[in-house]
Amino acid sequence: MALVVQKFGGTSVGSVERIRNVARRAIDTQRAGHRVVLIVSAMSGETNRLLGLAHEVARVPDARELDALAATGEQVSAALTAMAVQSEGGKARSLLGHQIKIHTDDAFTKARIRAIEGSRIFETLDRGEIAVVAGFQGVDAQGNITTLGRGGSDTSAVAVAAAIGADECEIYTDVDGVYTTDPNICPSARKIDRISYEEMLELASLGAKVLQIRSVEIAMKYGVRVHVRSSFNDSPGTLVTKEDEALEGVVVSGVAYDKGEARVHVVGVDDRPGVAAELFERIAEKNVSVDMIVQNVTTDADPRASITFTLGKTDLARARPWIEEIARSLGAREVRYDEDVVKVSIVGLGMRSHSGIAAKMFRILANEGINIQAIATSEIRVSCLVAAKYTELAVRSLHDGFGLGGPRA
Amino acid sequence: MALVVQKFGGTSVGSVERIRNVARRAIDTQRAGHRVVLIVSAMSGETNRLLGLAHEVARVPDARELDALAATGEQVSAALTAMAVQSEGGKARSLLGHQIKIHTDDAFTKARIRAIEGSRIFETLDRGEIAVVAGFQGVDAQGNITTLGRGGSDTSAVAVAAAIGADECEIYTDVDGVYTTDPNICPSARKIDRISYEEMLELASLGAKVLQIRSVEIAMKYGVRVHVRSSFNDSPGTLVTKEDEALEGVVVSGVAYDKGEARVHVVGVDDRPGVAAELFERIAEKNVSVDMIVQNVTTDADPRASITFTLGKTDLARARPWIEEIARSLGAREVRYDEDVVKVSIVGLGMRSHSGIAAKMFRILANEGINIQAIATSEIRVSCLVAAKYTELAVRSLHDGFGLGGPRA
Repeated sequence: MALVVQKFGGTSVGSVERIRNVARRAIDTQRAGHRVVLIVSAMSGETNRLLGLAHEVARVPDARELDALAATGEQVSAALTAMAVQSEGGKARSLLGHQIKIHTDDAFTKARIRAIEGSRIFETLDRGEIAVVAGFQGVDAQGNITTLGRGGSDTSAVAVAAAIGADECEIYTDVDGVYTTDPNICPSARKIDRISYEEMLELASLGAKVLQIRSVEIAMKYGVRVHVRSSFNDSPGTLVTKEDEALEGVVVSGVAYDKGEARVHVVGVDDRPGVAAELFERIAEKNVSVDMIVQNVTTDADPRASITFTLGKTDLARARPWIEEIARSLGAREVRYDEDVVKVSIVGLGMRSHSGIAAKMFRILANEGINIQAIATSEIRVSCLVAAKYTELAVRSLHDGFGLGGPRA
Repeated sequence: MALVVQKFGGTSVGSVERIRNVARRAIDTQRAGHRVVLIVSAMSGETNRLLGLAHEVARVPDARELDALAATGEQVSAALTAMAVQSEGGKARSLLGHQIKIHTDDAFTKARIRAIEGSRIFETLDRGEIAVVAGFQGVDAQGNITTLGRGGSDTSAVAVAAAIGADECEIYTDVDGVYTTDPNICPSARKIDRISYEEMLELASLGAKVLQIRSVEIAMKYGVRVHVRSSFNDSPGTLVTKEDEALEGVVVSGVAYDKGEARVHVVGVDDRPGVAAELFERIAEKNVSVDMIVQNVTTDADPRASITFTLGKTDLARARPWIEEIARSLGAREVRYDEDVVKVSIVGLGMRSHSGIAAKMFRILANEGINIQAIATSEIRVSCLVAAKYTELAVRSLHDGFGLGGPRA
């Protein structure tokens, strides 16, 4: 007998008929001898409807009230799902964030979970009931309702699974699992059967939006086995798990891309120690995250340095005026911007024990005539910034070049 | 500086624009130097939408889950109203049943309030904020969400007013106040300025649906001054208050009617002691409430008795089979039913000190050729059952016959 957490997103509970499907799946799991905790999101469209009302009422709605408002979406889903389980012949009970309790800090609209009490869930399971937990929500020390931010139901699910020591946390979604790259641009993309937390973190943060990155961090921290799978069929999906459970021998697990960054090129600053430090310290003061950084070497012909970095496109507009101000104060000749760039990354645990992976990546891109504008690496990832028009070509050539199209070893 | 509770029903918070009006009215009250607690219902139509979803999901939805579901309606209103107050330049905070706490029993969908903690409301008021309380909801001893049943927001408002010792509880509605009778059938109906709890109870239970009867009971028990008034203008409405504050010298305060009852006529039962007792004991066992009861006197020509009583039309269908069974066992010749009846009542504190009021009522009806089928009286009420076709005629002739059309003394 296993203890299983099953999380269903907004699409999976988007209609009365789909809620019934969720109920039947949970009952089937229970009848197969397991104890089941469901985590449900708001019905698709409901959160947007509620936030729309809020913005009709107030130009800048209060964060505490936004959370009290938005949390009703998951409360409705949880109550309806519990009713559906009962209607299908099972036993169930809805549990809200303040009932369980899911303790969070008081950072309304983006609260972080501090602790989860398991006793109310176990009482429910001990009565033979399916516990239907409203995702996305918690309660702060004062009893105010908080929410975990968009996609927070994944976080709720993994955190609840960790708190009650669940054997597995199943994340039901509208895709079959995690893919080696985006199937929309690379037809040979293949579903990954097993992947380590570390790889999933690199893939998630790079834009493969299957799992909320925070939920993967929590899963890794507490060793929760996460199973990403489709709510529309019974096929096994992708198991996100500890490194030693993930398969050996694979060098590169996936190819990700991210069009969300813009390149900033600060030309001709003084070539003295501390210039780069000063530049990035002052940018950090403005609370803007910088990703890839390249400092050009100076030559005798041009003794002035130039620095390239990327930052989120959404930050660029507000950052431009003071980036230019900082650059001027550092003696820069000019600042150039380029939003037509894409960051293409290869991710894989195997990189740690295989040399030459980065070189192979550069060679594959070079063979396609793709110029690399910046490079960033981590222990298990290599990222290259290239012109956006090469996105599909770069992803496909890397995916096939690293043998991801074939059956996995 | 007064402490004021203002309750707004579903129509009054039925749109974003109306929610803004509620917010402005509360801010005006606060700026006039008062401390304000708002109680809000779900936006009109929302409760029905939620219950509709529940009945799509389950034929007989679980009562606990129905409450968790339905309570979201008031939670949404409370959060939006708090945002609206802030948007209009005021300070506000929404408070839910489980936050305040409003303790109830665990009779889901029709819970009764046991106690209300005032501290959270006072903390909010002490910060200079308007407390926006979600009506209709509470929490049981286990932390389950409960609701007070339809119209329960009136009850929330009066109970909160009692708990915090409010100077007045204003019930905003879509009418100007309590009328001497239904203005739709009697053009001379007049708004009542002041009325006693006792009279209001008799009028409410008889169908003048301005105030939930339970809220009047609580108001009477704790001496809460209730002011029923329109949310669409600033005119004073009707003050429901203690007898000594209500105006003296009025004999009849209002004329009510109720088409919700059916008449049952049990013909020819044995005329022996205990027959009526046995009949009504066995009906009470079935949990059906009986209202007016008349036992005919026997004559030498027909030594068998007959018993007439009324019960709710909604109970009649299920009650018929076993009423007939009970009647047969008591030797009854037959049982007749009549649903085309109306109960017309006159209500007034003054009746206690004036004799001949009932007789005057019978005379007025007789003068119009209206036959009385049954009579019931309380200390401050006389009710007559007549054929439904006489409803308008009976109400108008009583209203004018008791001088209610003119200016009140």
